[in-house]
Amino acid sequence: MIIREREPLNLEMPFAELGGSLTPNGRFYVRAHFPIPQPDMKTWRLKIEGAVARPFELSYDELRQMETRTLTATLECAGNSRVFLVPQAEGAQWGLGAVGNAEWTGVPLAAVLDRAGLEAGAVEVILEGADRGRIKEPPRPAGEIHYARSVPRAKALKDVLLAFKMNGAELPAAHGFPVRAIVPGWYGVASVKWLTRIIASEQPFTGYFQSIDYTVWERRGGRPVLVPITELLVKSEIARPEMAEVVPADADYRVHGAAWTGDAEITKVEISHDRGATWHAARLLGQPLTHAWRLWEFHWHTPAQPGPQTLLARATDSRGRQQPTDRDADRGSYLITHCLPIEVEVR
Amino acid sequence: MIIREREPLNLEMPFAELGGSLTPNGRFYVRAHFPIPQPDMKTWRLKIEGAVARPFELSYDELRQMETRTLTATLECAGNSRVFLVPQAEGAQWGLGAVGNAEWTGVPLAAVLDRAGLEAGAVEVILEGADRGRIKEPPRPAGEIHYARSVPRAKALKDVLLAFKMNGAELPAAHGFPVRAIVPGWYGVASVKWLTRIIASEQPFTGYFQSIDYTVWERRGGRPVLVPITELLVKSEIARPEMAEVVPADADYRVHGAAWTGDAEITKVEISHDRGATWHAARLLGQPLTHAWRLWEFHWHTPAQPGPQTLLARATDSRGRQQPTDRDADRGSYLITHCLPIEVEVR
Repeated sequence: MIIREREPLNLEMPFAELGGSLTPNGRFYVRAHFPIPQPDMKTWRLKIEGAVARPFELSYDELRQMETRTLTATLECAGNSRVFLVPQAEGAQWGLGAVGNAEWTGVPLAAVLDRAGLEAGAVEVILEGADRGRIKEPPRPAGEIHYARSVPRAKALKDVLLAFKMNGAELPAAHGFPVRAIVPGWYGVASVKWLTRIIASEQPFTGYFQSIDYTVWERRGGRPVLVPITELLVKSEIARPEMAEVVPADADYRVHGAAWTGDAEITKVEISHDRGATWHAARLLGQPLTHAWRLWEFHWHTPAQPGPQTLLARATDSRGRQQPTDRDADRGSYLITHCLPIEVEVR
Repeated sequence: MIIREREPLNLEMPFAELGGSLTPNGRFYVRAHFPIPQPDMKTWRLKIEGAVARPFELSYDELRQMETRTLTATLECAGNSRVFLVPQAEGAQWGLGAVGNAEWTGVPLAAVLDRAGLEAGAVEVILEGADRGRIKEPPRPAGEIHYARSVPRAKALKDVLLAFKMNGAELPAAHGFPVRAIVPGWYGVASVKWLTRIIASEQPFTGYFQSIDYTVWERRGGRPVLVPITELLVKSEIARPEMAEVVPADADYRVHGAAWTGDAEITKVEISHDRGATWHAARLLGQPLTHAWRLWEFHWHTPAQPGPQTLLARATDSRGRQQPTDRDADRGSYLITHCLPIEVEVR
C-alpha cells in the first residue's frame, strides 16, 4: 500500500494492481481523520437516540444476532485523484487508488430505526464514529469532535447498512471495527467507520465534515452555494498502463480499469489516445451491479512510432451522465472526475 | 478613523470619541470585502427576481418615489473587538469601534416584495450587492463572486429596509450608495451594501458569506453544527476610559459607553472594577429604542492608591440575556461579546 499519511493512517491501493472485481481487504484504501479507536468489546454499545420513540442500545452480540444483508458497494474517497489537480490542492495527494469495491455484510439501518420507532419529524439520521480529535485549521469547533455525517431520512431507510463483515471476514480495525456504516452509491465520506451512535435529527445536520470539510460549490441561479458531498459521480480510471509506464511499440496492449457511478449503472466506457479527439469503445466485463464498479478492458494497438502517448478513459452511466473533459474549479479539492490523463512512453 | 485595511476599505471609529446616540456618517465604521462599486446611475437598476409572480426592476428615481420609512438601527461588525482575542484570531484586528448607530431612511423590503408577488414557496430572500471579487483562501468558489446574504421570509417581510439615506443625508459611497439593506437587530453582515438584486429563493441559501465565512459553531445535542451569524447578541462597550488611559487617583471619573442587543431592549448595564467580583449599576441614558444602542454612564470614584485598574461592563437585555464573563471558543473569530477588560493606569 502507498502511505499517504501515517498518523492518522491514510493508505492507498496501488491502482495498477487492480485484479478481480472485489478489492481484497488488505488492498482496500484506508482513510482516517483521527487515531483508530480501540474499543473495549465488553462495554462497547451502539446507541440509537434522538427523534425516536424508543431509544435503545445494542451490544456487538445483539447486533450480530439480527437479520443480516449482504451487498456489494464501491467506496471512493471524495479526494481520490487529487494528485492530478494543477495547481496542487490542499489535502492528501491521492493518486488513483483511494477507491475500492467490497462485499459488505451487516444489519440494515432501517431495521434498527424501525425498532427504535423513528419519529415523523426526523428528517436526517446522524451517524457518529468513536474516532475523535481536534481540527487544526479555522473555522473549527472548539475541543475534540467525533467524526460524524448525516444521511437524509429516505436514504437511511432505503439501503444504508451497519456492516460488521467485509468480503466475508471480520471488519478490520482500519475499516471500522466493530461496525461501520455503508452508504451505497455515496462517496466514502458518508460511510462512517467505528460507528457508536445513530441519532435521528429533526433538523439538517451541519457538522464539520459536511459544512467546512467535504463540501463543494454548486451554482444556483449563477450564484455559488455550498453543498455537502453525497452521491458518487460517474468516473472511470485506467489501472494499466499506469502513469509513466513504458509500453512496447506496434504491439497489442490490454488497457484495463474500472468505472463506477452513483445509483445507476455504467453503460459505456471509451478510450482516447489522441487527447479526446476520437473515442473508442472499451468492453465492459462481467455483469452490472448497482453500487459496484464495473471492470472494463480495451485492446490497444500501440503506435509504431516511439514517443510519449496520453490515454484517457471516459465513462457514461444509465442516467446519461458522462465524465467531463475539463475540471470544474467549483469542486475545490474534491470530486475529481474529469478524464485523467495517463501519460506513457511508447518504446 | 482608524484604518484597518486600505484595499478593500475597512475603517474603524475611535470608540473613545463616542458622543451622542447617532454616529455621524463620517465616523461610522466601514466594512468592505471588495472594491467599492462605482455605479453608473443612468443605467443602475434594482432587480427583484426569483420566486416571485412579477419580477421587475426599479430605477433609483422610481425607488425614491415609493413610500419611505425611517428607523434607527445599530450595526455591529460580527468581528468587532477581535483584537481582544487571545491567541490572536485571523481577520481585521478591530478594536471597539466597528459598531455604529444611525437613522436610516428608505423603502421597506416588504413593499417591493409585495409588488413583485412573493410566492408561497419562497423561504428566504437573497440580498446581493454590486461589490464582487475573488476569495483568496480555500474552500472558495471559482472566479469572482458578489457579496450576498439571505434573510428568512418572515424577517424580510417584517422590518428590512432598502435604505438610501443615512442620518438624513444621501447614503455615502462607502456605506452602500445608492441603496443598501438595513436588517435591524442583526449583525452588520446581513445589511448588504450596494444592493442591486433581490432574489426570492425556495431553498435556504448557503453562499460563501453565510457558510464558510460569517458562521459560528453551536452545540446541538453536544455536537458542533455550523450556523450563519444572524441576530445581534447583547453587548456593552466602554468608550471612556479607553485602553491604557491614565486616570487621576481619588477623583470622580465619568465612565461611559453604549450597549445594544438584538430584537430586545437593554435593561441593565453594570460596571466592575474588581475583575467581576462585584458589579455596580450604570445609569441608562435617554429612552429605549428597539434596534438602537443605549448610551450609559457610571460615576466612578477612582482609588486613592496609584496603580493598574481593570474595568468591565456587562449588559443585560429584556429577554434576560447577559454578557458572559468568558469567551466561547466555538465562536472562532466572531461574536466577541464577553466582558472586555479595559486596563487603565490610576496616577
